[in-house]
This record gives sequence, C-alpha cells and structure tokens, in this order.
Amino acid sequence: MLKLKAKYLDIEPRYPLVIMNIDDAKEIGANNTDRVLVTFKKKSKIVVVETTATIVPSGSIGLNRRAMKYGITTDDYLYVDPAEKPVSVEYIKKKLRGAELTKKECEVIISDINDNKINDIELGAYVSAIYMHDFTDRELIAITRKMVSTGATFKWKNNNVVDKHSIGGVPGNRVTPIIVAIATSAGLVMPKTSSRAITSPSGTADTLEVWCNVDQPTDKIQDVIDKTGGCFVWGGNMDIAPTDDKIIRGEYPLSIDPEGQLLASVMAKKAAMGAKAVVIDIPFGSESKVESLSKARSLARRFKALGKSLGVKIECAVTRGEQPIGHGIGPVLECMDILSVLEGKGPKDLREKSLELSGMLLKLTKKGDRKTAEDILNSGMALKKFRQIVVAQEGNPDLNLRSLVGRHGVNVKASRSGTVTRIYNHRISRIARIAGAPKDKGAGIYMHVKIDDIVKKGDRLFDIYSEKKIKLGHAQKICAENYPIDIEEKDNMLVEEI
Amino acid sequence: MLKLKAKYLDIEPRYPLVIMNIDDAKEIGANNTDRVLVTFKKKSKIVVVETTATIVPSGSIGLNRRAMKYGITTDDYLYVDPAEKPVSVEYIKKKLRGAELTKKECEVIISDINDNKINDIELGAYVSAIYMHDFTDRELIAITRKMVSTGATFKWKNNNVVDKHSIGGVPGNRVTPIIVAIATSAGLVMPKTSSRAITSPSGTADTLEVWCNVDQPTDKIQDVIDKTGGCFVWGGNMDIAPTDDKIIRGEYPLSIDPEGQLLASVMAKKAAMGAKAVVIDIPFGSESKVESLSKARSLARRFKALGKSLGVKIECAVTRGEQPIGHGIGPVLECMDILSVLEGKGPKDLREKSLELSGMLLKLTKKGDRKTAEDILNSGMALKKFRQIVVAQEGNPDLNLRSLVGRHGVNVKASRSGTVTRIYNHRISRIARIAGAPKDKGAGIYMHVKIDDIVKKGDRLFDIYSEKKIKLGHAQKICAENYPIDIEEKDNMLVEEI
Repeated sequence: MLKLKAKYLDIEPRYPLVIMNIDDAKEIGANNTDRVLVTFKKKSKIVVVETTATIVPSGSIGLNRRAMKYGITTDDYLYVDPAEKPVSVEYIKKKLRGAELTKKECEVIISDINDNKINDIELGAYVSAIYMHDFTDRELIAITRKMVSTGATFKWKNNNVVDKHSIGGVPGNRVTPIIVAIATSAGLVMPKTSSRAITSPSGTADTLEVWCNVDQPTDKIQDVIDKTGGCFVWGGNMDIAPTDDKIIRGEYPLSIDPEGQLLASVMAKKAAMGAKAVVIDIPFGSESKVESLSKARSLARRFKALGKSLGVKIECAVTRGEQPIGHGIGPVLECMDILSVLEGKGPKDLREKSLELSGMLLKLTKKGDRKTAEDILNSGMALKKFRQIVVAQEGNPDLNLRSLVGRHGVNVKASRSGTVTRIYNHRISRIARIAGAPKDKGAGIYMHVKIDDIVKKGDRLFDIYSEKKIKLGHAQKICAENYPIDIEEKDNMLVEEI
Repeated sequence: MLKLKAKYLDIEPRYPLVIMNIDDAKEIGANNTDRVLVTFKKKSKIVVVETTATIVPSGSIGLNRRAMKYGITTDDYLYVDPAEKPVSVEYIKKKLRGAELTKKECEVIISDINDNKINDIELGAYVSAIYMHDFTDRELIAITRKMVSTGATFKWKNNNVVDKHSIGGVPGNRVTPIIVAIATSAGLVMPKTSSRAITSPSGTADTLEVWCNVDQPTDKIQDVIDKTGGCFVWGGNMDIAPTDDKIIRGEYPLSIDPEGQLLASVMAKKAAMGAKAVVIDIPFGSESKVESLSKARSLARRFKALGKSLGVKIECAVTRGEQPIGHGIGPVLECMDILSVLEGKGPKDLREKSLELSGMLLKLTKKGDRKTAEDILNSGMALKKFRQIVVAQEGNPDLNLRSLVGRHGVNVKASRSGTVTRIYNHRISRIARIAGAPKDKGAGIYMHVKIDDIVKKGDRLFDIYSEKKIKLGHAQKICAENYPIDIEEKDNMLVEEI
C-alpha cells in the first residue's frame, strides 16, 4: 500500500482516473491502464490508473475533476493498492468468442461499465462483441434491466404515462414537441427527455433550447410535469440509464450502433422514465439508419418482445426515411416548422407524421385515435399546451424566430430541369453542420423540394443559412463537392452523357 | 479553421493528442475522441482530440509532451481543422464482420496505428477482431511486412545474422544471454533485443540490466555488435517495428495475445533486425501460454510459413513449459543462474535448454550442432564472450551477485511428505512480483524443487527474497493464499480427506 498526496489535475473528458508517477506505479506493480484501489477516509474505490514520468512527482497522485468529486482536496493523503482486473473483462472476452452470457455476467458488465472500471480499450472490445454477435433474447433482457436499475427511476401517480422514440437519422424529423403537446392535451403524461446532436445538425434538445431552458434539475422537471403533463428536457444530466452514455462513448468512434445495444438503451430509458406505453418511430430507406423494410420489421418485433418482458406496451411505426422531413434543418429553422404545424399549417409531412404517431399513442392508451389527435391540433389546444410547457421551463413562446435565422444566406438553385429523384440525408446534414448547426442556432438548411417534385432549371432547391460568413463559404464548398440532390429526366433511361 | 495558442500540458502516457476547449471543438464540429488536422508552420498532422470545459481556455490548445515533439512551444499559434475519421476504422469493422482484408487495407491499418490516428476504443476493436477471426495467410504477410517497413531496419556485412525468440510465460527462462554468448563465439552475428517485464517478474532486459546498461543508442549498439558479434539491449527505444508496442497497448488490458498478431509482431522484429535464421522457443503446458502440444505444433508451422515468405529460415523448438526453469526468478537471482551455466555448472535444465537452442542455430547456419555449442560452453569461450559484451555495454561482469539479493528472505518448507506433482507458474510469478521483482532487482524466488522431486515434510521448497520487509510480508500472505506447489502421495488415488 502506498500513501500518496492528492494533486488536482483537471483532465475532464474521461472516466474518473488517477495519474501516478511511473516509479510509484512500479512500486505496486501497476502498469498504465491497470486498475488501482484508492482509499480515502476508509472509503475505497477502484479506478483506472495512467502513469507519467513527469507530470505527477513520486509521492503524489493526480486526480481529475471527476475523481475529485469524492470530497478529496489537494494535499489530502490517499492510500493506493494494486487491484485485480475486473472480472467483466473475462465476460467481454467470452462474448467476443461468441458464447452466451449468463444473467449475472450481463449484470456485472453493465455495472462495471457504469462504475468506470472498464477502460477505453475494453469498452471498444465490448462494443465490438455486440456488433459481431448481438445479444440473445435472454442477454437483451438482462442488460436492459440492469441498465434501468443502475440509474434514477421515475414513478407517477397518473398511470397513463407514455413516451416516444425515434431511431433517428432523418434530418428535420422534429415531431416530438408536437406529439408531447397533443398527447398531454389528451390527458396523458409524457415525461419526454431528448438528446443533443452528436453527428446530426440538431437534436430535439438543441432545437427546443431555442425557446426554453432544457437543462432542468430533476425536481423542477417533476414540477413542470405536474403542472402541464409534459416537458421538453435534455436527458443528459438526469442519471436515467446512465450506462448508455458510457456505451455511446465506445460506439461513437467506430460509428456502430449494434441493434441489441440500441434496443437495450432505448428501452432502458423508457422503462426508467416510468413509461407504460411507447411508440417507436423506425424510419427506413437507403438514407436512414435502417436500410430495408425487412430490417425495420425485424427491429420492430424485437422492440415489442423486449417491451413485453419489461411490462411496457410498444407500437412501432415504420416510417419513410428517404428524405428530410419538413423544411427546416438546424435549431431555429426547425422551430419555425414546429410552430407552423402547431398553428394548424404545414409542412404537410411533419404534420402528418406527428398526427399518425400521436394517434398511435392515444390508441395504445385507449384515449382516442388519429382523428382525436387531429381535432386537438386543429382546435389550438396543442398550441396552447406547447406554450404552457415552454413558459413552465422559463422560456418565451413568442420569440421572433425569423430574426434568429443566420443572417448569411444563399439560395441553391437547380442546374437543370427534371424530377427530384434523390435527396441525400447525410450530405444535407453535413452541409447544415458545416454551416454551424447545432452550435450556431440560426444555421442550417431550408428545403424547398421533396422527392418526385418537378423542377425547372434555376428553381430554388434549398437555402443555406449561417451566422458566420466564413462558415457559409465552407458549407457552399462542401455542397458543391457532394451535391445533395439528384435531378433526372425520370422517364429517360439515359441519366447523363459524360 | 481555428487559430489557437499552444499550451503545454504534460499528459505523458497516451498517444499524441491535443486537448481543446469544448466551445472551440464545437465551433469546428469536433467531438471528444474525433481527429483534427493541426497545422504548424505549414506542416499538418492529424491527431486525436479530447475536449475540456476548464483545463484549456477557449482560444488555446493543450498539447502533451509527445505532441510537443514537433517543435511547437507554448504560445505558438496553431491552426485547427476538422478531420475525417481515418479510413482504417472502416477496415477494422470489415475485419470485425469476418471478411478478409486486402493487402492495401492491412497496410493502412498498420500505418494509421503507427501514426497514432487510431484512438483506444478503435484499438480495442482491432485487437478484438484479430482475437476472433485471426489473420488469413495473406493478411499475416501484409501486416508483418508493413510492421517492418514502418520502423528502423538493420543491415549487416556478415550474412550469418541469427536471432531467437521465446513465446514466454515460463518464469526463469533466461536462456538468451547464454545463447548469444555461444552463437557469437561460433562466429555468428546476433543483434539480440529483449523486452522488459509487463506482467512477469523479469524480462531479459530487466535481468541483464543488473550487469550492464541495456538502454543504448542505436549507433552504440552497432559498435558493440561490430566489436563482439552480439549485444544485450532493450528493444523499447530502438524504433524496430514500433507499431508492436502500440498494438500491445491494446492487448494488455484484455490479456489477449491473438496468435496472428503474435506471429506478425515477432517476425516483424526479427526481419527488421536483419536476421536470416531464427530459432523460436515454444514452451507448452497447462502453465504456459501455449496449452497443448497440438497448438504448439500448429503455431510452429505458421512461424515457418511466415518466415519463408519473409526470407528468414525458421526452426521451432517446442519445449517443456510446465514449471519454472533454473532456480532463480527475479533479476539478480536469474543472473546467478546465468553465470553459473556460463561457468560450466548448473542448473541443469537451463544449461540443457540453452545448448539445444544454440545447437539449432548452429545447424541452421551450418556452423555446427549441439556438440559444437557444448564444446564452446565447456571451453570457457562463451563466458569470455559474455564478459566482453557486458564490458562493451559499460557493465561490470565481476559483480558480487550474492550481495545484491534482497536482504529480507524466508524459506518456504514442505508441509507434508510426498512427490511434487505441480508447480504453478502464474502463482510463482505473482509472488515474485509482489516481493518486488522486477523493480527491486534483488527480489524474487529461489526454487529448490522440480516436478517429480520427492520431498519430506520440512524440506525447503523455495525461498522468497525481498528488498523491503513489508513486501516480503505481502508476498508471504499471497503465497499462503495461493500456494504454488502441489505435493501428493503419487501412487495414492485419494488426494486429500476433507
């Protein structure tokens, strides 16, 4: 056991870790990325260690901000012992070899990931194993249940608690606030948490942040829901199935989202929020996450089976995902679409999809159907409810959205006449991101066309908006290099003469 | 493009990376663990980025010591652009899915790992993919060749350049210095590089460091070899197949050593050192890395095939690995065994194994056989050569080894009479490490018995030595909990009455 003096090193981004001088580490036989048992005031915790020859002198121990959370201050003395490799590493290897894990083994893996005992290399191996072998049904249930129980869970007096989730990948798919407004108007409770964008031009939380404060403490969220039935919050700070964020950390660099892990992560969050009925939106198409209708159907079946074992009623909506929804892509531009639908106007696809999904929630809870949803929307009740939630979250529903759109804009026009045959979601998203979304709220794209529209040379296809001139320039350049819209003479077999 | 001021953060242990304030990172759309293109004085390099809210202020960029190697000093301005994910990540995923990689894809993976463009999560996925699917023959050749060409390579005037490698896992297996002394006495060139212990009580480099400086600059190594024909150096700073250390970084936390990667790593180093003939020692047995004779044979066949494609003659020695070799385990204690064999004495197993492997090298190069090796050893020529190399490496061959043995010692005695039926290599190693090896050179274990020895209750089985009393106490405790030797009445079917 070594006795070392604490030294605060604010290395924020990673799991709680300690940095030891290489001589001290050798003294207890610990190598870089090993685990050590750190004891402070009789409380012990196993953490990942990194070694350094210079930044921490022998006799001291460097702690990052997350490690410092445990009440340790600089110059406190800590005791350090070598710790065994966590047993979950053996289970990850077992899964890598293709064997089925027991319930207990699944639970240990999730709890070790959640307790930050797994280093990045091991996390890469876990994600790889699921990518290759997926979960069996039994593993899926065990992993999901454990993901629920390692975080905060919510209970509600009203038993009609509903939720929705979209598999994502479709730009402008901002149905959530509209559905929340309709469902809560019908007397349902919908404690909706949303995410921020990682690789997309905007997450629902990024968009709603234009209107109100989406980062609320848990007791405040309870207040908002008690008052309005719903909420528009970012789930990132709420400790709901917190292992999910840690697993995403491993999926992100590899751009993989193994189906089993997706099922577990979505359903763990819904179960933790206390939802009793959930509608899952599964957009499919060559430009969305789920490529084919058959894959969408099989995913839907797995969602329903998992929901059953968790006591959550599930309906899946397999939806068209081959092109962006609405006009706006990027926070402020999406807000304009949302408000327009709530005011009883367009865009038509966003309105239709919101009504269909709301109708499914109403049916699941025996509160009505699509017609009910449409009546609520047309009556202005949904708009009123929406404004009520925004105000409850310290927001201003009367924002002049148009004034917030990026002041540098450009119209992109058709270079030929013909039919719009394809819109590339990934390219649209990339251009919107390079224009500044989601960081610059007013940046993004405003679409003027949909697939099958007939356009004439010189017609406006879409606009790019940016808050900074230089970003608009970059976005235009990327747009020219990876043009996001195909226009063809539809009845012509010859596409192009080169 | 962002222009940021350099700030030196000595975070040593990891790949070159930069730390950006989260606002600056968002400005260019980069997330934690993404890559960015950093430009300084018109030179650009892609590096992994981590983000922080506090440690680096917006407008600055944190660089670790490795990144600072590129001549950047604090307050220099750097330009930062977003960079695409390296294409090798797609190839790693292809391999995860079980597909065969093309030569080009193998090369890009190795070169991206070597250039530190692969983050830890992706490295975990690479190692997992090889663990699961191994390399095909074609992949193995491509990976090995690329590992050679990404580092330094050596050429020698004398064409009789030989080398040896042991798969490892057997404590006390310190044949290397004896073989180097014999082979170079016979006129062969043996530019031997060795490793330090990672999880074992001593690597050859740790042991030889008792006598001489094993960390020599490359030109000095050339001098020593020109003068003596051989050398005893640590390979860690020599830039030979440098990707290997980076891959080991990914294998270590998972305790996996996929066969294909082992083959590539070993042969890349031998080829880079210019070896024309190599003997591979493959110890097998339940207590060594290779468990069965059939696995040892199949590994041997793959070594020979790979050697052929690289133009290196290979002979494999499948050896007994079920118990430690020699008496000493730990740097100084192993030195005593080595010197004893060079002086024409025991331990018998260490002497025998050294002679067999030396004989194989002499045969491969048509310089003789086992008998030749024995004559060289018995004549004292090998001892003389050994002393010559030690002196050439600024060492003292007349060291009083006995005085360097840890002064805290304990004899471990048989608690019953019977036959030694099993010696647990892993437990022996662990006890020696806890006693302080390899950091404390005088720490370790001295074995008095071998398997099949008949012992009486109270006979000495082994001694534990330590430089610090407290470490001896820990070692004794671990020894009692995980007793490393089984003694049984061999002809008795009843092992124990409990």
